[in-house]
Amino acid sequence: MAEDKENKLKARLPRGFADRGPAEIAATRRMLETIRRVYERYGFEPVETPMIEYTDALGKFLPDLDRPNEGVFSFQDDDEQWMSLRYDLTAPLARYVAENFDALPKPYRSYRAGYVYRNEKPGPGRFRQFMQFDADTVGSSSMAADAEVCMMIADTMEELGLGGNYVVKVNNRKVLDGIREVVGVASDAQWLTALRAIDKLDRLGVDEVEKLLGPGRKDESGDFTKGAGLPDSAITRLINFTGWGERGSGSISTIGSNEVTIANFETAVEDSALGKAGVAELTLIKDLAAAGGYGDGRIIIDPSVVRGLEYYTGPVFEVELTFPVEGEDGKPVRFGSVAGGGRYDGLVGRFRNENIPATGISIGVSRLMAALQHLKKVDTQGEPGPVVVTVFDQDRIADYQKMVAALRGANIRAELYLGSGKFGAQMKYADKRGAPCAVIQGGDEKAKGEVQIKDLIFGATISSIKDRDAYKAAQAKAQFAVPEEKLVEAVQKLLAQHGVKWE
Amino acid sequence: MAEDKENKLKARLPRGFADRGPAEIAATRRMLETIRRVYERYGFEPVETPMIEYTDALGKFLPDLDRPNEGVFSFQDDDEQWMSLRYDLTAPLARYVAENFDALPKPYRSYRAGYVYRNEKPGPGRFRQFMQFDADTVGSSSMAADAEVCMMIADTMEELGLGGNYVVKVNNRKVLDGIREVVGVASDAQWLTALRAIDKLDRLGVDEVEKLLGPGRKDESGDFTKGAGLPDSAITRLINFTGWGERGSGSISTIGSNEVTIANFETAVEDSALGKAGVAELTLIKDLAAAGGYGDGRIIIDPSVVRGLEYYTGPVFEVELTFPVEGEDGKPVRFGSVAGGGRYDGLVGRFRNENIPATGISIGVSRLMAALQHLKKVDTQGEPGPVVVTVFDQDRIADYQKMVAALRGANIRAELYLGSGKFGAQMKYADKRGAPCAVIQGGDEKAKGEVQIKDLIFGATISSIKDRDAYKAAQAKAQFAVPEEKLVEAVQKLLAQHGVKWE
Repeated sequence: MAEDKENKLKARLPRGFADRGPAEIAATRRMLETIRRVYERYGFEPVETPMIEYTDALGKFLPDLDRPNEGVFSFQDDDEQWMSLRYDLTAPLARYVAENFDALPKPYRSYRAGYVYRNEKPGPGRFRQFMQFDADTVGSSSMAADAEVCMMIADTMEELGLGGNYVVKVNNRKVLDGIREVVGVASDAQWLTALRAIDKLDRLGVDEVEKLLGPGRKDESGDFTKGAGLPDSAITRLINFTGWGERGSGSISTIGSNEVTIANFETAVEDSALGKAGVAELTLIKDLAAAGGYGDGRIIIDPSVVRGLEYYTGPVFEVELTFPVEGEDGKPVRFGSVAGGGRYDGLVGRFRNENIPATGISIGVSRLMAALQHLKKVDTQGEPGPVVVTVFDQDRIADYQKMVAALRGANIRAELYLGSGKFGAQMKYADKRGAPCAVIQGGDEKAKGEVQIKDLIFGATISSIKDRDAYKAAQAKAQFAVPEEKLVEAVQKLLAQHGVKWE
Repeated sequence: MAEDKENKLKARLPRGFADRGPAEIAATRRMLETIRRVYERYGFEPVETPMIEYTDALGKFLPDLDRPNEGVFSFQDDDEQWMSLRYDLTAPLARYVAENFDALPKPYRSYRAGYVYRNEKPGPGRFRQFMQFDADTVGSSSMAADAEVCMMIADTMEELGLGGNYVVKVNNRKVLDGIREVVGVASDAQWLTALRAIDKLDRLGVDEVEKLLGPGRKDESGDFTKGAGLPDSAITRLINFTGWGERGSGSISTIGSNEVTIANFETAVEDSALGKAGVAELTLIKDLAAAGGYGDGRIIIDPSVVRGLEYYTGPVFEVELTFPVEGEDGKPVRFGSVAGGGRYDGLVGRFRNENIPATGISIGVSRLMAALQHLKKVDTQGEPGPVVVTVFDQDRIADYQKMVAALRGANIRAELYLGSGKFGAQMKYADKRGAPCAVIQGGDEKAKGEVQIKDLIFGATISSIKDRDAYKAAQAKAQFAVPEEKLVEAVQKLLAQHGVKWE
């Protein structure tokens, strides 16, 4: 450990990790409380699992011995078993449910908030530690469970003040697989390329996406992207499935009603049993959403939702924020997805001799917070600072401490200045702390049994006063004496005048 | 990944890690809120650092390549730099302050709550992931900062309902080092053995501890513990320092007043400059505690507080719970320490060309929660369950969902039964969920425009009624019909009758 002055340790964090200050902590806490309130109203109960799990329980193969931290942070226990930091909150839930299966109510609705870890290349807005807030219903194969998750996330967005700025998009993995059967795409890679192309309809329009479904596409800069190489008949079927056929190009918000979308799906899956089952599931969700009053464009069936994770087996969801933000090139772009999920009927079954149906959704807490900040739906100012009691005479620190205690006793946030600075430094400190006022008692005041109160909020406004007499009058108002025993009362009055309140 | 039925994955956690359920999560949240409220009243502001830091920033030498996880979980980043999971919240704070030094107010009061990780042998009550709640003042060398930390932790214990059941014990590393000078113990190992012996006065009494300070001691089972091997004169001085000399043996609660203890210290450190400086520091803390009204036995100077961490440089604190609990042998033992800390003037300086004074305290959240549970100061029952709307007819699930939505709209926690069970299974589910009541609507009720409400709280009390008519009357009261449109009103009335409230 380098301790000498020439070669001090550097205070720094590894890339992709971040510290958080008071305003962000308070804003996040309020946001999490709102989500929690909605989820508990829906009967979901909290559960918490640790950050570390056995690697195999998380559903990962054993790590590559040369690069054990690839993707997931992993290390070996004393008995050489591999452990990992969790990379999501779904795999640990599956482990928890399997381990406590008999004790849990079934269906089991639960929510969890916490950090997850991904050892991926960090970038702007991409962290190696970030927070998720998940809700899942385990043990129900009813589409009512999926519809409930969609309605709950819609309610959550409303309570966070995002009404009118979001949409819950629903698709179905079985529908996609059914269409694949009908279109006849054998290669996984080809199908993935096709799905990625469909996902770009919003941005590129039908003509360009058709190229990506076929031989490939040259973009404006001249770069060539290889296409899925599907035959024309398959391309036509896929475009018809998305409902974009008649419009040519446009924005995703112009896609048809849920009824029209479902009708397109029905045509597209033809005789595929899997596809038909998926359409039936989506029809149920659509009907339940409509009955709940969410069919007004808040919950929409959308063919473009694909979701990457392999474990989804039925409906998949994505919550997209629909307000435009400025992209890197200055052009408006969608804020994008802040939550996603779906049905994963096989995940708990990895541990048991029966399949356990499950469905759920995960909120990306940091992304959602960024959205709320962008829309000015959160207070990013942080809370008011504490009252600062200054120290004029180090020998009388016990007296100053009593003043602080009296203020705290009246539920006023208060601090004793604990540094070694003189009066000027103490005032600078009070400013930096955002103190509404400072309390001062020198020898003269002590002799008179008084304290001075310096109103820092009002004081900050008077420097612009040009007239000398008016300035002096204002100055007198900004700092005034009260009898010692009236300190608390006077501070309370000052706080009330300025509307200073702490949470 | 073993997926075949014969060889299913086992759902289990690594040793030393634990899941937490709703009641514990809610109780912990309430406890953390109380601590937070007190700390913020003292002007401490929150900060959060990530779980992962560079190993050297945490103050650890590079890990042993063969056993990188010894004590601290460690792994190498892509660029081969070592990273570790934090093992406390103090080292990350030092890194944070050093990194943000110019932007922070000085002195800087902050608090942090979060998980820390130790890769040690787990045992009963010993976990590899556990929560700490820390508060620190960085940038003040004033003993008022140390006294404030002691008073703040005392206020916290009071607000948690532990008044009369705790004591904040204060000692000073300089005093101990001064006495070491005077007694003349050159060997670190010998001195450590002596300090450990002093720590046992409470349990063993003076005679036995004198043996441990001298040649050694044979315990009741005949096992021999090697002593510190100090000469008689040194032993006498050490025993006099502890204030146990006159009493022979007794319990730590019989030690003298803070004034008597300080007088013993003054005698014991003789002419050691270091020792005298330590006594002066303790005198200041004692006076400030007395002025604040904490000299009533809540903050006591105690020679037995040693604290293991090497980085402490002045005052050290420990919060001990004083109520007896039953030990493993059935005999009463102290619950013991729930918080500890002290002054660590060198820790931030590792990163900078100047020493930054700092002092703070860390609460062991899990241990404190265990204490509160033991004293029945926390609700370990958890919250009431939600109202359960049962499903009689799967085709009418949209109707049932509307009832649930109406209840939720009135801020009543409510669930739709999402399983596939018949009525009996649904009632069992409602019981397991702790539902106050269930809502039922079969075909007959639907035809009449009614719903049945089954009062599960009252219902649970009637099975003991022997008289047939009385039982039938009670049964009628336990399940009753109301018009559909009166559902919310009727449930609200029922909840009010039983005093059911959610947080």
